[in-house]
Amino acid sequence: MEVIVLAAGQGKRMRSVLPKVLQPLAARPMLAHVLDTARALDARRIVVVYGHGGEVVREALAAPDLAWARQDPPQGTGHAVQQAMPLVEDGDIALILYGDVPLIGQASLRRLSAAASDRSLALLTVEMADPTGYGRILRDAAGKVTRIVEEKDATPEERRVTEVNTGILAAPVARLRQWLANLKNNNAQGEYYLTDIIAMAVADGLEVITTRPDAFEETLGVNNKTQLAELERIHQRNTARRLTDEGVTVIDPARLDVRGNLVCGHDVEIDINCIFEGDVELGDGVRIGANCIIRNAKIGAGTRIAAFSQIEDTVMGEACVIGPYARTRPGTVLGTDVHLGNFVEVKNSVIADHSKANHLAYVGDADIGQRVNVGAGTITCNYDGANKFRTIIEDDVFIGSDTQLVAPVRVGRGATLGAGTTLTKDAPAEQLTVSRARQLSLAGWKRPVKVKKA
Amino acid sequence: MEVIVLAAGQGKRMRSVLPKVLQPLAARPMLAHVLDTARALDARRIVVVYGHGGEVVREALAAPDLAWARQDPPQGTGHAVQQAMPLVEDGDIALILYGDVPLIGQASLRRLSAAASDRSLALLTVEMADPTGYGRILRDAAGKVTRIVEEKDATPEERRVTEVNTGILAAPVARLRQWLANLKNNNAQGEYYLTDIIAMAVADGLEVITTRPDAFEETLGVNNKTQLAELERIHQRNTARRLTDEGVTVIDPARLDVRGNLVCGHDVEIDINCIFEGDVELGDGVRIGANCIIRNAKIGAGTRIAAFSQIEDTVMGEACVIGPYARTRPGTVLGTDVHLGNFVEVKNSVIADHSKANHLAYVGDADIGQRVNVGAGTITCNYDGANKFRTIIEDDVFIGSDTQLVAPVRVGRGATLGAGTTLTKDAPAEQLTVSRARQLSLAGWKRPVKVKKA
Amino acid sequence: MEVIVLAAGQGKRMRSVLPKVLQPLAARPMLAHVLDTARALDARRIVVVYGHGGEVVREALAAPDLAWARQDPPQGTGHAVQQAMPLVEDGDIALILYGDVPLIGQASLRRLSAAASDRSLALLTVEMADPTGYGRILRDAAGKVTRIVEEKDATPEERRVTEVNTGILAAPVARLRQWLANLKNNNAQGEYYLTDIIAMAVADGLEVITTRPDAFEETLGVNNKTQLAELERIHQRNTARRLTDEGVTVIDPARLDVRGNLVCGHDVEIDINCIFEGDVELGDGVRIGANCIIRNAKIGAGTRIAAFSQIEDTVMGEACVIGPYARTRPGTVLGTDVHLGNFVEVKNSVIADHSKANHLAYVGDADIGQRVNVGAGTITCNYDGANKFRTIIEDDVFIGSDTQLVAPVRVGRGATLGAGTTLTKDAPAEQLTVSRARQLSLAGWKRPVKVKKA
Repeated sequence: MEVIVLAAGQGKRMRSVLPKVLQPLAARPMLAHVLDTARALDARRIVVVYGHGGEVVREALAAPDLAWARQDPPQGTGHAVQQAMPLVEDGDIALILYGDVPLIGQASLRRLSAAASDRSLALLTVEMADPTGYGRILRDAAGKVTRIVEEKDATPEERRVTEVNTGILAAPVARLRQWLANLKNNNAQGEYYLTDIIAMAVADGLEVITTRPDAFEETLGVNNKTQLAELERIHQRNTARRLTDEGVTVIDPARLDVRGNLVCGHDVEIDINCIFEGDVELGDGVRIGANCIIRNAKIGAGTRIAAFSQIEDTVMGEACVIGPYARTRPGTVLGTDVHLGNFVEVKNSVIADHSKANHLAYVGDADIGQRVNVGAGTITCNYDGANKFRTIIEDDVFIGSDTQLVAPVRVGRGATLGAGTTLTKDAPAEQLTVSRARQLSLAGWKRPVKVKKA
Repeated sequence: MEVIVLAAGQGKRMRSVLPKVLQPLAARPMLAHVLDTARALDARRIVVVYGHGGEVVREALAAPDLAWARQDPPQGTGHAVQQAMPLVEDGDIALILYGDVPLIGQASLRRLSAAASDRSLALLTVEMADPTGYGRILRDAAGKVTRIVEEKDATPEERRVTEVNTGILAAPVARLRQWLANLKNNNAQGEYYLTDIIAMAVADGLEVITTRPDAFEETLGVNNKTQLAELERIHQRNTARRLTDEGVTVIDPARLDVRGNLVCGHDVEIDINCIFEGDVELGDGVRIGANCIIRNAKIGAGTRIAAFSQIEDTVMGEACVIGPYARTRPGTVLGTDVHLGNFVEVKNSVIADHSKANHLAYVGDADIGQRVNVGAGTITCNYDGANKFRTIIEDDVFIGSDTQLVAPVRVGRGATLGAGTTLTKDAPAEQLTVSRARQLSLAGWKRPVKVKKA
Repeated sequence: MEVIVLAAGQGKRMRSVLPKVLQPLAARPMLAHVLDTARALDARRIVVVYGHGGEVVREALAAPDLAWARQDPPQGTGHAVQQAMPLVEDGDIALILYGDVPLIGQASLRRLSAAASDRSLALLTVEMADPTGYGRILRDAAGKVTRIVEEKDATPEERRVTEVNTGILAAPVARLRQWLANLKNNNAQGEYYLTDIIAMAVADGLEVITTRPDAFEETLGVNNKTQLAELERIHQRNTARRLTDEGVTVIDPARLDVRGNLVCGHDVEIDINCIFEGDVELGDGVRIGANCIIRNAKIGAGTRIAAFSQIEDTVMGEACVIGPYARTRPGTVLGTDVHLGNFVEVKNSVIADHSKANHLAYVGDADIGQRVNVGAGTITCNYDGANKFRTIIEDDVFIGSDTQLVAPVRVGRGATLGAGTTLTKDAPAEQLTVSRARQLSLAGWKRPVKVKKA
């Protein structure tokens, strides 16, 4: 099989500088979804037809397994497919897809392409309660497809037909090549219409076989941002449904956004309004609180991430207790039973088992050992305005509140830092280190009084 | 045209101390929405009929272009309109609206009022699949409206009529005045019903012309908080639809709340669950992360606001990088490429181009120059318990972590403040300023041990 | 009345280690919802039939008013009810409920059980547009129920019946006991079916009376996580509807989660995406901002909680101003007009009237008096690595920014602590207390320069 993906539409109605097929669905270009589906079909070749200004499409989605055909200027869908024909081989079946019909499913396409052969053209059609505006599938008395008639050319009786063309079809390459060569553009738009090949196929004695998609929504196209938003929701609803079918407890499937691959162990619970981006793996029994955002992360079994947390490019061990309002940034690696509390930021740091930073802290470029207590308000001063340095905190250290660790600096095993310490040199193991001025009270001191403004 | 808005209903079913027409839809009183629509129609005069306890309505929405008529006690819709009649002029068309029907649209009203004339009364009607409870529009064999019959007075045959009265109508003032004077209250409720004028109009030889609203939901009234919530959602869905039609990428239109005016440039993207209040302007390419709340703000092109941020009365330049968990409060003005990171609060401060406060900071009443680095944990101590003072930080300053700037204080150009500094006097330009005790370690020190509780 | 609740299903399709009836709906086991409803019916006795591995069910929901019957191995619904029969008494009516049909309502059950008597069996039935898969209710020419036929045994004509069995029924105990004893398992599954008793009741001359639930959704069962999520939403929608009917302003009823009991005064407003857990009481005029999570709390009249706040096991006085991004943890007690601002955490502390902690602070194990100002960045160092101690701050204290209070420590009435103080000893009343090193500037100091990496 050969797959031809039409992706040349400019999409002016998107009102965007980004070409239509690059508009994101679940954070990836619509076209990328179609290409993923095409790849899953094990096509011999995937040809993408791009158009004027479409070099950005080609750059964005460049891959060794793709061939590219340029259509410029656009002269209709038939013309678009024509541009791809030099790149496909006679003897194969060509499957025509669309870069702006992103939800088309593998199973539907397998059924469709299996119906195409040297002697048959396969057409994906759907039933619509209100088919207004769509090309109707006309059949003879025996029920065989004879042709497709467009809305504007249809008789009143033909308009009552509710089976409509989706544009997605599979046809033998050699025949397709021949039909495309015979297309005429003697219509109002002066365009070459792919649908005209149906009547040609019938005339050539091929059977036109229709198949249905698993779901109507697979055939929806996107012409504007309103439709894009609708498809985004359909896609997310499908994803949520897949997860709940697999046994994930999703508190509100209508408030779950997965933008990438989310893999869950058993007994995972996801509260409302969470977003998962990139590759995320949640171990058995993981619970994600409301409003969390998790991006490219691996979360160990039994870990609980409380509400309002944002986790990015992070590996977390088992039984961690994270959040609420915790943020981990790229390069964060947490061991087992690590606790990160509210208003804590961790970046490019390794924190070993049983260590805790529970309140208002910034841990950046640090290596923290086991059983370390990072006090509230602790800050690793990793940046001197020009360079970044690491902070090393060995096992069993207790860091008092509001401590600044001016990197590069090392805190030895079992050391204690007093509250408010500015640590500029290494702290020896097992000792208490402080940098503290004497506490003084001024007896005669008077509080400032409110100054009236002129 | 004259517009009469009936706003005297007490709305007991709202179960609120606030009069019904002041109940907020998209954060503004329902009546304010109706008045906005009336104003957009370029009415000569807008008369609001308020009722018992309605002085608070009058105060809340006082405006020079409004006239107010008091109806107390309430004696029906006809009686309510009567109270307004001394304030409107013969020769005009009067359009009757309702303070608790807030979604009524301009286009629908223009069509309606254009249908009214000296010789015709125009009535806004809708088709309902289940018209139970509504006044039915009765027509003669020729299809001309003859009268409105209320549910309880309707014959079984009349009840099968599915065209119902919305109460919204336009009529010539002189005629209306005359009909109202002839209304009778000999009914069960002892009230004067506005709908009785329809039969009077017919009797007087006027044609009763019916028009339809653009959308059925425009005619929905609010009698309780359940209906208020329903209309809030319809309104928000309509707003989201308008934005996506204009080209804004809205990741979930069902999770967008706009309470005011949101103006977007091209290629704006708004993630889930965001709220916009007051006047908000988003420049080209602005991206708003999930769960952000933006109130009265102007955001420059290319700026990205990450999740969980709250922006209020703020002007932001281009290409800023804000959040997650950043909060700007009134009086915040940011230049180009300003970065505010997590757990950072800015209030009444100006931060110039390329400056950054990336972690856990409070910047209040400060003027910050260009290319300043505000370290993690920095706090401007702007309040001495009685007065507030400003902090001035000149260009190219580097402020170490956990620094307190006790205002009024100035940090000279290019100065560096060491980590943990308590700055009580001005810091000279280009120099390093610190206030730091010597770091000491106590070799013999023993850690506290767990004390058992009795 | 006696209630028998069938709760022995293993629920493999839930794909969970937790037994099906313990799967949470609104954060409580499904079975707990059914038991609550059963208790509200004032049953003489509630017998729960549990199955293999169901000891965990018994432990989780143990209560003095419950009797437990074990069914192992499972041999059908009739067999399950049989296990309960030794625990119920002749002369009563037995009501059969299901642990995985959690939304069944009191009113529906009262109507059903009232219809059962010595001479009648009462069956809860529903009409389904598509009854495929359900047992159909068959009636004779006079409309009397004759029996229930399962889908697979039904004739084409019987399959057209749209009235289906819900499984919920009420029957006289003595008769039920007798019918159950006569059940046969000569069917494909080799199981004893409860529904077979209907025909027996008819044969015995009892009338089979059918009643309908108030809402169809009350009869929905849960077999997988997808259905669990659907019921969660139905339950939450019902709860939101009850609140708006009571006069609560809920900005988006589809984005409200109540997991427990939420009691609201008048003129309460709840913004989008809030979660209420456990027992929450909101006083008159309370406003809860977007995305708040409130768990076991009592909030005084007029208090406003801004967005992104999380409140847990907290009592708040009137007119407090909380958040955004404020978090209170268990043991927090706030007086009147207390202000907690952004990035502030309070735990196990009492804060008296008119006191404020507006920015970036951790207040743990503290007693704070009236009119205290807790400066930005203040931290109570309540933990020395082994023990926790209290911090006492008396009335009218002003705590400068970035202060650490090393507990146990007391700040006397009217005292002022300078910014950056590390308070290790008590601070005398009315005095200024500081611990501050002298501010120094180094004139010849050179900034670090960027080091190139090899």
